[in-house]
Amino acid sequence: MRYELFYWPDIPGRGEFVRLALEEGGADYVDVGNDPEAGGLPAVEALLGEDGGARPPFAPPVLRAGSQVIAQVAAILQFLGPRLGLVAKNPRDALWTHQLQLTIADLVAEAHDVHHPVGIGAYYEDQKDEALRRAEEFRTQRIPKFLGYFERVLAGNPRGTGHLVGARLSYADLSLFHTVEGLRYAFPRTLDRLAPRLPHVLALAEAVARRPRISAYLASDRRLPLDENGIFRHYPELDP
Amino acid sequence: MRYELFYWPDIPGRGEFVRLALEEGGADYVDVGNDPEAGGLPAVEALLGEDGGARPPFAPPVLRAGSQVIAQVAAILQFLGPRLGLVAKNPRDALWTHQLQLTIADLVAEAHDVHHPVGIGAYYEDQKDEALRRAEEFRTQRIPKFLGYFERVLAGNPRGTGHLVGARLSYADLSLFHTVEGLRYAFPRTLDRLAPRLPHVLALAEAVARRPRISAYLASDRRLPLDENGIFRHYPELDP
Repeated sequence: MRYELFYWPDIPGRGEFVRLALEEGGADYVDVGNDPEAGGLPAVEALLGEDGGARPPFAPPVLRAGSQVIAQVAAILQFLGPRLGLVAKNPRDALWTHQLQLTIADLVAEAHDVHHPVGIGAYYEDQKDEALRRAEEFRTQRIPKFLGYFERVLAGNPRGTGHLVGARLSYADLSLFHTVEGLRYAFPRTLDRLAPRLPHVLALAEAVARRPRISAYLASDRRLPLDENGIFRHYPELDP
Repeated sequence: MRYELFYWPDIPGRGEFVRLALEEGGADYVDVGNDPEAGGLPAVEALLGEDGGARPPFAPPVLRAGSQVIAQVAAILQFLGPRLGLVAKNPRDALWTHQLQLTIADLVAEAHDVHHPVGIGAYYEDQKDEALRRAEEFRTQRIPKFLGYFERVLAGNPRGTGHLVGARLSYADLSLFHTVEGLRYAFPRTLDRLAPRLPHVLALAEAVARRPRISAYLASDRRLPLDENGIFRHYPELDP
């Protein structure tokens, strides 16, 4: 099975959560938006429009697996999990993994809204005052609450603090890794301040980065750099 | 199986998406937050704290089903769907239903953020100017985009326009119904203007309201009224 990932080119964005699963799972895949030979951006746009068929995606990322087309990061990962060995087989653990993924998705959405609090379609520069207000709460309350929650989950995992679920890597671990990477990029001072309270979260992120397939991916040109066009943006004024 | 729903009392909130599934499914359930005899608000707060155990919920709603505790609306509905006959059995249709539910969740989150664009923990009155800005985009771009998407899905359903997935009711239909109700409450003028472009969405919402169990529920005192403490709030200045 050759998987096709459809996502905007040039940014990690929400596509990154899918890429990390495909990479760690050793999947055969093509990153369509970043591969002109596979169709590039026009193919992504076509899938959102006329190519969407009777079950159209609302927004990227979208995964095509043969005749199946799946959108929404959490749904894609739920689909890929068992196929790539990135989730436990028993339904309880699988649902718990998914629940954690949905909470990561909520954090990621808030990380985006910090720089776009009043206009998803408008520029950051046109909503800077509002972003300054929102960033304060995000830094002082929301990041500590979310990452503190994952710290608590790791500390309370009866199978050890190395993974969110059970004793093995899951797609939620990969997603938490990238979320920590993104937050560290966007809010380095905040993350530095919080570090002493997040030993297990930070250890998990480091352990994921050291996994052979992930470290090879991170060193490759398939890994796109975080920048100010994506979800996690570093605007120093938002992280004083 | 007696299900226990843990959610803040007195508002429909995100708990409503779970209530509608439990009601339509004819489930035996207790709405703990609204039932002092079942523990009321203290029981909800305890579950978010010390009672959370090794797999704690991040936020309500939470469903307890025997020894299993599940948070996140979409995860709860994915769990309840097959148990209450509210989702197709085949995995493709079930995943498509879930994907639609996640898109509804995105719309609901944006509907909330309209009145809380810069501070989730602050009062609306303290972020009114920002809310006015955000509401304009929500009214003119986001509501049309989201509801237009569901209109397209219904119009393109090869099994008929009466349901989002296949030829039978699913939990996504119930959730779309409540989302339309909420948007109609919060943005009545906007919904009136959009109505001619949303025939299938509005017909689905009406059909859900007429279902025997749902109409009995809507007429009961278990159905909590929408008000300005919930997700969908009617501030006339945001819907000119």
